[in-house]
Amino acid sequence: MSAFDELMEFARDTQALGEVAGRLGWDQETVMPDGAGPQRAEEMAALEKVLHARRNDPRIGDWLEAIDEAGLDDAGHAQIREIRRARDRAAKVPVALAAELARVTSAAQGKWAEARAGDDFEAFKPVLEEVVNLRREEASALADGGDLYDALLDDYEPGLSGSDIQSLFDAMRPRLVTLRDKALGASNQPETLVGNWAEKKQLKLSTKLAKTFGYDLAHGRIDKAVHPFSSGSGLDVRITTRTSEEDPFNCFYSTIHEVGHACYEQNIDNAYLLTPIGRGASMGVHESQSRIYENQLGRSRAFTGWLFDQMEARFGKTPASDADAFYRMVNRLQKGFIRTEADEVQYNLHIMLRFDLERRLIGGQLDVADLEAVWNERFAADFGYEVDKASNGVLQDVHWSVGLFGYFPTYALGNIYAGCLYDALRKDLSDLDMRLGQGDATYATTWLADKLQQHGTLRNPRQTIEHATGAAVTVEPLLRYLEQKFEGIYF
Amino acid sequence: MSAFDELMEFARDTQALGEVAGRLGWDQETVMPDGAGPQRAEEMAALEKVLHARRNDPRIGDWLEAIDEAGLDDAGHAQIREIRRARDRAAKVPVALAAELARVTSAAQGKWAEARAGDDFEAFKPVLEEVVNLRREEASALADGGDLYDALLDDYEPGLSGSDIQSLFDAMRPRLVTLRDKALGASNQPETLVGNWAEKKQLKLSTKLAKTFGYDLAHGRIDKAVHPFSSGSGLDVRITTRTSEEDPFNCFYSTIHEVGHACYEQNIDNAYLLTPIGRGASMGVHESQSRIYENQLGRSRAFTGWLFDQMEARFGKTPASDADAFYRMVNRLQKGFIRTEADEVQYNLHIMLRFDLERRLIGGQLDVADLEAVWNERFAADFGYEVDKASNGVLQDVHWSVGLFGYFPTYALGNIYAGCLYDALRKDLSDLDMRLGQGDATYATTWLADKLQQHGTLRNPRQTIEHATGAAVTVEPLLRYLEQKFEGIYF
Repeated sequence: MSAFDELMEFARDTQALGEVAGRLGWDQETVMPDGAGPQRAEEMAALEKVLHARRNDPRIGDWLEAIDEAGLDDAGHAQIREIRRARDRAAKVPVALAAELARVTSAAQGKWAEARAGDDFEAFKPVLEEVVNLRREEASALADGGDLYDALLDDYEPGLSGSDIQSLFDAMRPRLVTLRDKALGASNQPETLVGNWAEKKQLKLSTKLAKTFGYDLAHGRIDKAVHPFSSGSGLDVRITTRTSEEDPFNCFYSTIHEVGHACYEQNIDNAYLLTPIGRGASMGVHESQSRIYENQLGRSRAFTGWLFDQMEARFGKTPASDADAFYRMVNRLQKGFIRTEADEVQYNLHIMLRFDLERRLIGGQLDVADLEAVWNERFAADFGYEVDKASNGVLQDVHWSVGLFGYFPTYALGNIYAGCLYDALRKDLSDLDMRLGQGDATYATTWLADKLQQHGTLRNPRQTIEHATGAAVTVEPLLRYLEQKFEGIYF
Repeated sequence: MSAFDELMEFARDTQALGEVAGRLGWDQETVMPDGAGPQRAEEMAALEKVLHARRNDPRIGDWLEAIDEAGLDDAGHAQIREIRRARDRAAKVPVALAAELARVTSAAQGKWAEARAGDDFEAFKPVLEEVVNLRREEASALADGGDLYDALLDDYEPGLSGSDIQSLFDAMRPRLVTLRDKALGASNQPETLVGNWAEKKQLKLSTKLAKTFGYDLAHGRIDKAVHPFSSGSGLDVRITTRTSEEDPFNCFYSTIHEVGHACYEQNIDNAYLLTPIGRGASMGVHESQSRIYENQLGRSRAFTGWLFDQMEARFGKTPASDADAFYRMVNRLQKGFIRTEADEVQYNLHIMLRFDLERRLIGGQLDVADLEAVWNERFAADFGYEVDKASNGVLQDVHWSVGLFGYFPTYALGNIYAGCLYDALRKDLSDLDMRLGQGDATYATTWLADKLQQHGTLRNPRQTIEHATGAAVTVEPLLRYLEQKFEGIYF
């Protein structure tokens, strides 16, 4: 075997073991018996030790040195790029620091959940300080003297810096605020959903929706869980959903969102199965798929017209007075504290708040001690009303407790990328609305599979989007789409 | 850390990774999407590579040498005994042979399934020859000049030889044959179950049965699968069951059987969690638990009286004319080709046939080429009628295709052990029948948990039984129990 083949065999096994770890995570959230937690923690820790040792295996360096890269094709180059990236990151972080981070974030998640339940940021502060300090230490090890926040961000969105993101956000904010203020102040507010929507029928329709968007149930499954997520890659990509009998849209749109993530993983070229490039290109690109499925396609006038008929047929009653009113209902803008419940416009404002705060935390310009006060002040300035309790404010998201600093902006990047992709998709598919109106969302998502999903991590995130759209990434398409859509709805 | 602590930490991680592999097996049989098989095979292979490397890790020998065994307690000694046993076995088998066995048995299982579907032993012969040759080679490596079959048997039932088993079987056969012939020739045959029994109600009652026998659903779950099995140990022990609307006893008694296996694993002392002695002591001891739950307790007159009432209440009709007739029905002896469908008496005769044949195959006195003819001849001699097709004969069991030679006798050993345990249990619990008649099977199984299950592999298999019963293992209690029971039913 050549050095390249040996390295790839090693990498495939590592990737396969990573899939196993992911499957344990799925099991834990869906089917694991309540009392199995302590044992599962030991099983996960044993598997993580194996994965950690493999990521730091000295043979990786030997193989990389021995490989003649001139003889590789594009995919081979990309494999080497991803393996080198992961190896370099792993080599820079001392083993003791990685172990300490794993230990502290594992404990911090439980403390966050308790603190949130009690609306008590003070109780969360000490462990969050530990997490921030450890992540800053890790960032220093990774940054080679460069910016600390950029070093963390690079793990989720390779090639993008904090100042790149700042520029994108600066260009978006004024137009989003204008749009939000106009919509919230408009006199013609959408109808509100009323009544009770049977869980079983929700779950049946959500399975139908998943298929409608091209989700392959021969290589996946749908289960109920507390939080919707997508898990796995390649031939086994599972999603979860949740239901509320008062709010069926929660079920429908979180299903479509997760189907976006899942289709991406399912549609990657099988030649890349269980290899470093056989995964989505970044968190931002991943989110672009879930967002375009959920919003640009799933909340379009054409598709919601079909969904309106489906709901009427399946539940025996209409969710709104007519299909136009239904379209306005599922796109309603309203006041609210919670990021995950926010509409397409305000969602990005929530992200900007978190991005600023976490960048200052990691940069050392903001202390955890002041975080709640700064959050609340900033929220009032951005949204125009006061946070009423910590669970509606600084404690609402799990991310920081598990050390995810640099992750939040990828959600907004996903929206920006989705805007670019939708712009290109509409140009290519002139009969899109007709197809969506017939419930044929696969027509659109096949375009995404062809242009983007099949390539996995063959290219870096930005190149992945630009290869698909044939144009540079800018915020313009997203802003134009939002303005056109919401001006149509509200004015 | 002392050498002992280091070795135990290593062993715990290995055990935890073994649990993960088991969980993947459960996933594959219950919830895995149909199309995920090829990827799962790669994931399992990657995990097996890790486990194989750990079993052969040279540090185990260093730790074992460095440990001062005089300072250990009983559990510590038992841990060392089990670790040394596993290490010695792993060290004796060349890596290339182990890999070849894994490859060939994986392929052979598929070929067996095809051959069975086509009733075509000829199609299975070539791969079975390969399997037998490889296992003989492995046995030679393990046997150190001793008996080949004993070397394989030792993996499933440490400390027992083929001639030990032969003596036990010789003592059983005549009395079992006499009992069988009298029962099959009796004029007062039990009633036959008729009608259709709704699957949902079967599953609900089987969950009730599981709880009745003490299965802890906070550390387990019940799912449907093609074959019933129990999987996992410690805090996460899952079982499966299956249903047939014509034959609810299939569901009920396979559930009780698997609950026996599962309770054993659930009830092991938590101090042994994820350690080498934190598992059942052997296949035979494991089977003694499933068998005593299923047969001595589950098919007793007292318990079936309660079950009769449960069925009447839940299905709205009685399965037999009265509770006595019901008891005779679930204990019916009848002609049949299939081991897994056999009654308590004839089951052991099926095992004896397999034991003789596989012992001669491994010993080199029987060729695979002659196996079908010898099976059929032997079956006619033992049972008095001719095998009609290979799927009812030599192809009925999966075991040999996956290389399980030396495993079959542990099923009959389980029956013998169960006989011993039941004898002791009845002496200790004078009001057993009253409790069973109230559906309180936990009353009996708590005795088993206390006397046997909690100890895991603290002792070797025979000592495990003898510690629980306070008497030597013999076939007498089982034979007396069977004779008393079936003479009561038939004469």
